[in-house]
Amino acid sequence: MTETDWGMVAQNWLDRLAACSEPGAGVTRLPFTPEHRAALAVLRELMEAAGLAVHLDAAGTLIGRRDGPADAPALLLGSHQDSVREGGAYDGIMGVVLAVLALMKLRQDGVSLPFATEVLAFADEEGVRFPTALMGPRALAGTFDMAALELSDRDGISLRNAMQDFGLNPDALPDLKRDPSHCLGWIECHLEQGPVLEQAQQALGVVSGICGIERHSVTLTGSAAHAGTVPMALRRDALAGAAELVLAVEGVARRADGVLATVGSIHTRPNVVNAVPGDVSLTVEIRAPHDDSRATTRAQIEQKAQMIAADRNLALNMRRSYAQAATPCDTEMTLALTGAVRAGGGTGMTLASGATHDTSAMADLCPVGMIFTACRGGVSHHPDEYVTPDVMAQAVAALASALAQPGFAR
Amino acid sequence: MTETDWGMVAQNWLDRLAACSEPGAGVTRLPFTPEHRAALAVLRELMEAAGLAVHLDAAGTLIGRRDGPADAPALLLGSHQDSVREGGAYDGIMGVVLAVLALMKLRQDGVSLPFATEVLAFADEEGVRFPTALMGPRALAGTFDMAALELSDRDGISLRNAMQDFGLNPDALPDLKRDPSHCLGWIECHLEQGPVLEQAQQALGVVSGICGIERHSVTLTGSAAHAGTVPMALRRDALAGAAELVLAVEGVARRADGVLATVGSIHTRPNVVNAVPGDVSLTVEIRAPHDDSRATTRAQIEQKAQMIAADRNLALNMRRSYAQAATPCDTEMTLALTGAVRAGGGTGMTLASGATHDTSAMADLCPVGMIFTACRGGVSHHPDEYVTPDVMAQAVAALASALAQPGFAR
Repeated sequence: MTETDWGMVAQNWLDRLAACSEPGAGVTRLPFTPEHRAALAVLRELMEAAGLAVHLDAAGTLIGRRDGPADAPALLLGSHQDSVREGGAYDGIMGVVLAVLALMKLRQDGVSLPFATEVLAFADEEGVRFPTALMGPRALAGTFDMAALELSDRDGISLRNAMQDFGLNPDALPDLKRDPSHCLGWIECHLEQGPVLEQAQQALGVVSGICGIERHSVTLTGSAAHAGTVPMALRRDALAGAAELVLAVEGVARRADGVLATVGSIHTRPNVVNAVPGDVSLTVEIRAPHDDSRATTRAQIEQKAQMIAADRNLALNMRRSYAQAATPCDTEMTLALTGAVRAGGGTGMTLASGATHDTSAMADLCPVGMIFTACRGGVSHHPDEYVTPDVMAQAVAALASALAQPGFAR
Repeated sequence: MTETDWGMVAQNWLDRLAACSEPGAGVTRLPFTPEHRAALAVLRELMEAAGLAVHLDAAGTLIGRRDGPADAPALLLGSHQDSVREGGAYDGIMGVVLAVLALMKLRQDGVSLPFATEVLAFADEEGVRFPTALMGPRALAGTFDMAALELSDRDGISLRNAMQDFGLNPDALPDLKRDPSHCLGWIECHLEQGPVLEQAQQALGVVSGICGIERHSVTLTGSAAHAGTVPMALRRDALAGAAELVLAVEGVARRADGVLATVGSIHTRPNVVNAVPGDVSLTVEIRAPHDDSRATTRAQIEQKAQMIAADRNLALNMRRSYAQAATPCDTEMTLALTGAVRAGGGTGMTLASGATHDTSAMADLCPVGMIFTACRGGVSHHPDEYVTPDVMAQAVAALASALAQPGFAR
């Protein structure tokens, strides 16, 4: 098999896995469902073809392991098997397939590693079915909150019951906690879900870290009024104030390197054609690779919001609804991955991940590293999601190359 | 009775009329309902107390008439009896009560006019129950579209059936058309529904005309994206473009004298905290006392929208959904009303009406004039709506004074 054949092999397995879906556009594969079970059967077949010993853990994570020398620690690789509703055929699952193919390639190339390797296919990263996610990696890191088992899906089925119906024993989750000294590290390969690599004409990039995220609920309250009877100068138009804030959020983020800030949701009251809006509520989300730049961005946005509210005589309420710290990737692993990408002909460009991944939770267990693949048009979470076989072949080669480096995972 | 007593008298009648309401906050009195019937009984009592001959026309308009010299044309006064849901006790109905009290005052003062007078209480100006309004004045002007009789309220009752159940004969509506040569003019007294008079510390103002209105549906289409994966510089954020447009609409109107422009309604898709908005639809409403300034404002807004869309690589669609020409008030009547307001100690300030009134439809029949009264806080269409007895007393005096002017309605 040539280097480029690995891309076609990956595509064939991903086609089979994409068929493990609810009916409808794209792929819908939620955790602890018949579609999940069907995907696990395909993944088991793939893992066994690579000579891995396969088992399903209590969190529904399918694990394919190749032992190393006696008592050698393990390098963990993989991603998640689940999709969003009507999502694509690559998000998550591609990282599982490419990791297995990398181990297959190493075996074919006659490389024997000085450590054990495991490929993990986590059950639930997207958090679409239950209002929780990342149970698999959190169980390994010992950070899973058992109270989440009582959360229910939209049909009223609790996570606990869904797992039991799937044949799992949720009460055994605490037993999954790994000893960090037996974990060399974690490597995840995932499609970028954004346009940066494609614009830079790079197949692969190395993730420097996963952005911290914070979300705010903002309300601006002015005075609702008849749009025909209140002169412009006497209005307290909450939507006009909100418009200034939307542009301020954008402007602050544009001037800060690597920071993303978004007003994604806005609601206006009374929201009719002939009334000056009296109340607007909106969301502000900030993502940044470093927690200090996120704090600076937040402070600038808060200051702008206060100035806008004061100028327009609006009442302002800004409340943080969510916060998650940044997760830096391990420097040594990032350097190893960068070297492997360069060995394959890429520039080895690094970029931050604005999205959360299984890697975010694995960082609580061991050093982590991540490779992004270019995806067509930056499209993800959509049936049109696509990664070319050539890009996937380069990812397989880079993963295999990284693992085979003499200095890797000392 | 002293001049100021008329305000207390008006308040007493308005209290009785406010009781003619559905249960709930404020006043809810829709056309052709038991509440309408109850209000007509009170108004009939008031009109008869003023010595007027009372009848209900086929449109449900209660008319109190005092004849003038034989064959003398009539001056028409009044407003509407109906309210919005949970509205106030003054909107519309105050104009009926004050017009009757003005005629009562003239009789008490021993003034006999050289023309007939009629006070009209129209059934439906607000258009809350049926998706049509102004049937009463339109029937008089001969502009009522009989097809509107087939429109239904939210219970599926057609306007025709509601009127028949009320004891009216809708088929007689065309017979209500008045001969313009028998109509000297129309005067309406209405609360301002805005803050201008209160801010100017004036009890009364004279309306120069009723603004023309146009409404537009605007959509901006960019590209929805994951808020964590698309850098600021690569976004096509429809909400950021919409924010610029909201501020442009405000800015254009602020720089144009007397023009009001409002983005009252906005909808964003997908409208979630973690996605860059891909589509925004919003409404733009423009009101102006002169149709040419409205056209200029529209052209400026269109130009701004095109620039914003081009700068941000958004698709723009702007479609006019409604247009209504401005209605200037009659110069002679406006001068007469201004003189009467000044005689009562006011400055006689003039202002445009941004809202539509019965006057808008009466302008198709005869010369029209309008007096606005100050209302507390500019509040209307709300239970807190309030006009002081003192202001109402000044309005009664001004109406009576205007009618008694020797040169009026030549």
